[in-house]
Amino acid sequence: MKFSINRRFFFNKINMVSRAISVFSPLPALSGIWMDVRKDSIVLTGSDSNITIQTTIYKGEMNNLEIESTGSIVIESKYLSEIVRKLDSEFIDVELIDYTLVQISSPNGKFNLNGIQASEYPEINLERPENHFVLNRDDLTAIVNQTVFACGNDDQRPVLKGVNFHAKGKTLYCSGSDSFRLAYKKIELNEPQDFNITIPTKSLIEVQRSIDETIDAVDVYADTKKIQFIFDKTIFQSRLIDGNYPIVERIIPNQFIAEMRVDTQELAGVIDRTAFIRTDKIHVIKMECSEMVTRIKTASTEIGNSDEVLTDCVYHGDDLRFSCNGTFVTDALKALGGEKVRLQFSANQGPILISNPDDTSTLMIIVPMRSHD
Amino acid sequence: MKFSINRRFFFNKINMVSRAISVFSPLPALSGIWMDVRKDSIVLTGSDSNITIQTTIYKGEMNNLEIESTGSIVIESKYLSEIVRKLDSEFIDVELIDYTLVQISSPNGKFNLNGIQASEYPEINLERPENHFVLNRDDLTAIVNQTVFACGNDDQRPVLKGVNFHAKGKTLYCSGSDSFRLAYKKIELNEPQDFNITIPTKSLIEVQRSIDETIDAVDVYADTKKIQFIFDKTIFQSRLIDGNYPIVERIIPNQFIAEMRVDTQELAGVIDRTAFIRTDKIHVIKMECSEMVTRIKTASTEIGNSDEVLTDCVYHGDDLRFSCNGTFVTDALKALGGEKVRLQFSANQGPILISNPDDTSTLMIIVPMRSHD
Repeated sequence: MKFSINRRFFFNKINMVSRAISVFSPLPALSGIWMDVRKDSIVLTGSDSNITIQTTIYKGEMNNLEIESTGSIVIESKYLSEIVRKLDSEFIDVELIDYTLVQISSPNGKFNLNGIQASEYPEINLERPENHFVLNRDDLTAIVNQTVFACGNDDQRPVLKGVNFHAKGKTLYCSGSDSFRLAYKKIELNEPQDFNITIPTKSLIEVQRSIDETIDAVDVYADTKKIQFIFDKTIFQSRLIDGNYPIVERIIPNQFIAEMRVDTQELAGVIDRTAFIRTDKIHVIKMECSEMVTRIKTASTEIGNSDEVLTDCVYHGDDLRFSCNGTFVTDALKALGGEKVRLQFSANQGPILISNPDDTSTLMIIVPMRSHD
Repeated sequence: MKFSINRRFFFNKINMVSRAISVFSPLPALSGIWMDVRKDSIVLTGSDSNITIQTTIYKGEMNNLEIESTGSIVIESKYLSEIVRKLDSEFIDVELIDYTLVQISSPNGKFNLNGIQASEYPEINLERPENHFVLNRDDLTAIVNQTVFACGNDDQRPVLKGVNFHAKGKTLYCSGSDSFRLAYKKIELNEPQDFNITIPTKSLIEVQRSIDETIDAVDVYADTKKIQFIFDKTIFQSRLIDGNYPIVERIIPNQFIAEMRVDTQELAGVIDRTAFIRTDKIHVIKMECSEMVTRIKTASTEIGNSDEVLTDCVYHGDDLRFSCNGTFVTDALKALGGEKVRLQFSANQGPILISNPDDTSTLMIIVPMRSHD
């Protein structure tokens, strides 16, 4: 196994597949990158057994790849990545010099790394799942930014540790929820689809990070067990989370007793100023809403209390008093963006629907907290 | 106690004295800022009992300070600082509204914090020590950047946890050492002095951070127990470290068997590329020097090995082979700056003197490691 290649190009590819590799790998071989040098290409694979990333480098790309001999080896990803990143030459040589010893060399330096035999790398099924759709990079980014934050982190309810993709007809409904709040986003698809899967948040975040600005859209393939994102000679595969995702449409309120429109920045600022008070590490705020005045209060016997009035705020409907997690509201405002935000109240102590009045494709639902006064 | 003030000005002053405050304060009152509102000024004090920072805000500065009534209170620094930072108004009111309850208010919001009675704040002696000299901000910055990194962190030898300031005549010798390396810097003083003190590294770092670009020089007062830096209506006081500092002049070699001149960037790059190999978390490099070629090698049975040649390097003297801590060399190069660096070798396995050939006011000494091959 021997080849030479443009260092920067090679580094970017190593970096790409390294995203899948965990430092806490259960299998020693999985802490490495499987490098398979073929006649006209190099296939790099990284995996933590949940996420697998495989990319192929072809001769003739802008990478000056010259393959002298073929072969296959697994190399510890962190060392390989560090050496290739730090080398100061434009091109590097990579060669299997002795059994499992791999030499990476520049004109002045030789770096030898102990590898692992390729036969020890686990077999990973990268067969393509059946359902296919296309996702724009912008949509994928929006899904990650607008739903992942609301997902749970509780091993007792693993299904909430992912974002649910529910396709019905030409609409994809993406939901993230930790059972106290829900982030819900609609995406239009080109072709009708019918599936209901839950993707681990980590996988979604990593695939989004892997896709650079040169890529407009990715091909997505999914079945009930796994999902693949295909882009730039790369397969990004993730296992799905087993289990039935809650039917979120039942949670979204559609009748309201009151509505508030408020400047997003102002509401975010007022809530942020109450963050110095936390009760059991939770940032509890109390809202007192009437058509006369809306106040956000907070109190702790130990630290002190606060009381601030919203100025750029219009409120219609019943008087309301409730407590909720201020961080949840701040997260929702950040995810929505927009100058103005609308809060719709379904009942006293009932779920609150937060949305951008100009774009209702994304909805945030927050459940108030039981308060003790 | 009641006053109003420009919010940003007040925040900067709170921030300044907060630097002295530790989150792990032994005394509850020391987690707060002591705010003493007098007729024409406000005195803010923060302390962790080792470092004390006291700053005075006078009426008539560009701060719109209006004092309605005097008084004294201690307020938890992290809450005060967070509220004053986040408020969105240009001016704020601060008032003791009930026993120890302090109200900070803007036009739309009221924030009440539970304070602590001023009588519970410990007495801190801020009397001025006897010896006086002036230190330029640039010199202070250079001392921090060029000596602190070399200091020790071992409670067994507390004196090495500080930078030694040894004044003899019109020269101040500043030394940082962890006993395996020494950073040694000479500063010219305006007037002759005679003292030998050791300042905790934390204090030096904090005082340097506290001094902004508007301040050219600070007045320094010191005796055997404490040091004060005076600038911008602020006293920055630190306890000194007890104990005799080693006589560093004995360590600095002055006879050499070999000398190397090398491009600083290249040497730093070559050493950095060996950093993937660590033995018991230490970055051990092996240097092989001769007039023909200089190599930097490293090896580990587990990970692999490396071997790189220095190209922009001139070496005169005996052939040498030794091991040393690569991180120490990198730290020294970073502290020295300069395009070229000179390494002077006192003996085989003897201390190495590293300096910038154009500026010998700063010296770095590194002791090689015993190698087992």
